[in-house]
Amino acid sequence: MVKASDFKDKHFISMMDYSREELDYILSVADKMVELEKTGCDLAKGKVLGSMFFEPSTRTRLSFETAMFRLGGSVTTVADPMTSSAKKGETFEDTISTISNYVDVIAMRHPDNDAALRAKKVAKVPYINGGSGTWEHPTQTMLDLHCIRYAKGKIDGLAIGMVGDLKNGRTVHSLLKALRNYDVTVYCIAPDALKMKPEVIEEVKDKIKVIEVSDLPATMPKLDLVYMTRVQRERFATQEEYDKVKDSYIMDKKMIVDNGKKDVVIMHPLPRVNEITTDVDDMPNAWYFRQVKHGIYARMAIIALVLGLWKD
Amino acid sequence: MVKASDFKDKHFISMMDYSREELDYILSVADKMVELEKTGCDLAKGKVLGSMFFEPSTRTRLSFETAMFRLGGSVTTVADPMTSSAKKGETFEDTISTISNYVDVIAMRHPDNDAALRAKKVAKVPYINGGSGTWEHPTQTMLDLHCIRYAKGKIDGLAIGMVGDLKNGRTVHSLLKALRNYDVTVYCIAPDALKMKPEVIEEVKDKIKVIEVSDLPATMPKLDLVYMTRVQRERFATQEEYDKVKDSYIMDKKMIVDNGKKDVVIMHPLPRVNEITTDVDDMPNAWYFRQVKHGIYARMAIIALVLGLWKD
Amino acid sequence: MVKASDFKDKHFISMMDYSREELDYILSVADKMVELEKTGCDLAKGKVLGSMFFEPSTRTRLSFETAMFRLGGSVTTVADPMTSSAKKGETFEDTISTISNYVDVIAMRHPDNDAALRAKKVAKVPYINGGSGTWEHPTQTMLDLHCIRYAKGKIDGLAIGMVGDLKNGRTVHSLLKALRNYDVTVYCIAPDALKMKPEVIEEVKDKIKVIEVSDLPATMPKLDLVYMTRVQRERFATQEEYDKVKDSYIMDKKMIVDNGKKDVVIMHPLPRVNEITTDVDDMPNAWYFRQVKHGIYARMAIIALVLGLWKD
Repeated sequence: MVKASDFKDKHFISMMDYSREELDYILSVADKMVELEKTGCDLAKGKVLGSMFFEPSTRTRLSFETAMFRLGGSVTTVADPMTSSAKKGETFEDTISTISNYVDVIAMRHPDNDAALRAKKVAKVPYINGGSGTWEHPTQTMLDLHCIRYAKGKIDGLAIGMVGDLKNGRTVHSLLKALRNYDVTVYCIAPDALKMKPEVIEEVKDKIKVIEVSDLPATMPKLDLVYMTRVQRERFATQEEYDKVKDSYIMDKKMIVDNGKKDVVIMHPLPRVNEITTDVDDMPNAWYFRQVKHGIYARMAIIALVLGLWKD
Repeated sequence: MVKASDFKDKHFISMMDYSREELDYILSVADKMVELEKTGCDLAKGKVLGSMFFEPSTRTRLSFETAMFRLGGSVTTVADPMTSSAKKGETFEDTISTISNYVDVIAMRHPDNDAALRAKKVAKVPYINGGSGTWEHPTQTMLDLHCIRYAKGKIDGLAIGMVGDLKNGRTVHSLLKALRNYDVTVYCIAPDALKMKPEVIEEVKDKIKVIEVSDLPATMPKLDLVYMTRVQRERFATQEEYDKVKDSYIMDKKMIVDNGKKDVVIMHPLPRVNEITTDVDDMPNAWYFRQVKHGIYARMAIIALVLGLWKD
Repeated sequence: MVKASDFKDKHFISMMDYSREELDYILSVADKMVELEKTGCDLAKGKVLGSMFFEPSTRTRLSFETAMFRLGGSVTTVADPMTSSAKKGETFEDTISTISNYVDVIAMRHPDNDAALRAKKVAKVPYINGGSGTWEHPTQTMLDLHCIRYAKGKIDGLAIGMVGDLKNGRTVHSLLKALRNYDVTVYCIAPDALKMKPEVIEEVKDKIKVIEVSDLPATMPKLDLVYMTRVQRERFATQEEYDKVKDSYIMDKKMIVDNGKKDVVIMHPLPRVNEITTDVDDMPNAWYFRQVKHGIYARMAIIALVLGLWKD
């Protein structure tokens, strides 16, 4: 039986660390945050979040900070590609050790794939992985799962498509790992050059059905939910290769009307560029802006749990 | 009869949107903030301001943030010439839509003239224009009006001079628009290259007397209040043109003693460079540093009103 | 008899401004903060700290900000090598005058040696020197003294070594000035090119014994406490000169075991690069990470005192 104290003083690093019961528990705490987000509360009064963004991310940083404020806490921020200490030659480990002496909980975004795993070894306060290279972005997944439950009423039984750059996208890596705990079929829809990272499929393939395809229009009719991501020019070796696929992974109104289930849900971790056209924005299928709000709920839940502030 | 609820959930975009009665009402709320600023209060407890400065502005940003803190609220900040989302190709509209899902109120500075008008269309929480290109800077005007009332005891009946770059200065554009509601004479004192924007004069000329002149010393004796602004080298086509006028729009002690009314009030939106010499700083006529404080009062009033936190 | 009100509304600029009794008093207030740091408190509720870092310093900035949060206050931050106002040509004095109208207390880091002394003349709210060029860093010294008392139980009677760049290091300048009030012997251990600034020795030499040496291993056996600092390549005229000394001022496990007293305490203002090897980190002699925590206590005490929030 999962309980609040299981998460107290623990780091929040990877979706592979959590069972179905634990994920459902966190989501149930996020449910409670829906009301608290409206009113604010004093749960985290006197506590300080270190919001450390060593890679630019307005969206995730503001989401973490707002979550802490809604809990009644304070935030001290670093929003620099490179900290001054790192410039002076300090190791990442020393930075974490130092910050551990200031704040009660750290939320960190870092360009290195192994940043979260290295931080875990030295952080003396709970460390929340706010995106670690192309490896994982587990708090994004908690908000994605929470949003899926609001959009579809459930997670089990869904056919979920992930579309775009599945090789480099940390959001889809974390999401696929989390979904291994649910009764879902996942379609990985990507060009050959950007197929889902094999290591990630390896970690989940014994638990759920993962189908790799490259044709979005042909797959669309099967999907209950589509998780779009950006396909970036710089991920391709040549302009030619990019041009060949760039228009094949775009969600527009026509695609939804012609190929999609009537109630297919469209999500996106944002920011989007052109992979979802603006004519989708007003359709009831569009959940990507509403999705953002679930980031506050999910992060409020995670912060409250690791700080030991949530009581069952 | 204007009342607090008229401003609830409304954006704060342009001085053209407000009548005399509305401006006076906001100023009367700012009066109430003078006491609350000293003690702090809990009016905005649990509320979050998104302080979004996409163009550098230490002064205005800190003023908004301090105003929110004095109201008991929290602040999440972006102080970047370019947000990370914009770098990733996100549209301005998507950025506003996203931020709307986090915070309760947005204060934004943006280099584009149409930023505030575009934001207004998509923001789902009150959007306060903290400076939009060279177009308008309406919260600066509220502090200017509030300061004028403290310095002169009234606004009606004054002869007000605006001096310097009246073409590109958003502060004087907003101020002139607001002054259309009062019984004032405005002298626009500028070199030919930097004359008050014709569109702005067009918007006010049926309501107040605007006199365009270029000779500061000759106009000085008529003025009850002088609003100085910077004349920047880069606004002129050639060094020659700049050199011709650069010393003609400088306020020094001698100018005040020799040409000014004894109680002429000198204001400036700051930062000043050399257009007011430091020998003016200690004169009782110098109001530009005291003026700053009124920014806190005015912004506390505006934030409290748009959040619906102020009760009559 | 020193009392809390002696510090109210005063600036905190240089270690030369304080007597033994005053330093001990501040340290005794920092002792009280050890408990308050754990629980948080409402001492500074409604107060705003202006955290102005015109030179990068993640560590000191976060320490000041967290200290203010633990006191229940709010923080508005500038973390820029160059403020936007300075870019627009504003003088340092005008910047300070303006900020004085917003916040209740300023903590500032600035690259200029005379910044704190210039600020003192114009600041209308308490100004805390958070590092002023290579001149002084007095709040670092308060945390150092507080940490020394925890590590050694006392300050009087100790033989203290300062090692590394004693010419340019503002932390050792402030520390040596403060130590003039205690019954200590100070060994300044540095290569010729980086010897302790003569002006600093001049200020303290009548009160304590300062011994200048260059040989760390030979001096090590005499020391109760070693205060390490970075030796930076860019401080030397040639690579040759640097290479000659760079390995002579490194503290490693072997140095402590072979040359040090059993209970010698190793401190460092951080960030360290290679001047303390990581094999020291786990030794009981290593205090440099624990030292960080005392920065919160010391800065809570200083902020509470200058704001007049601490009652005897």
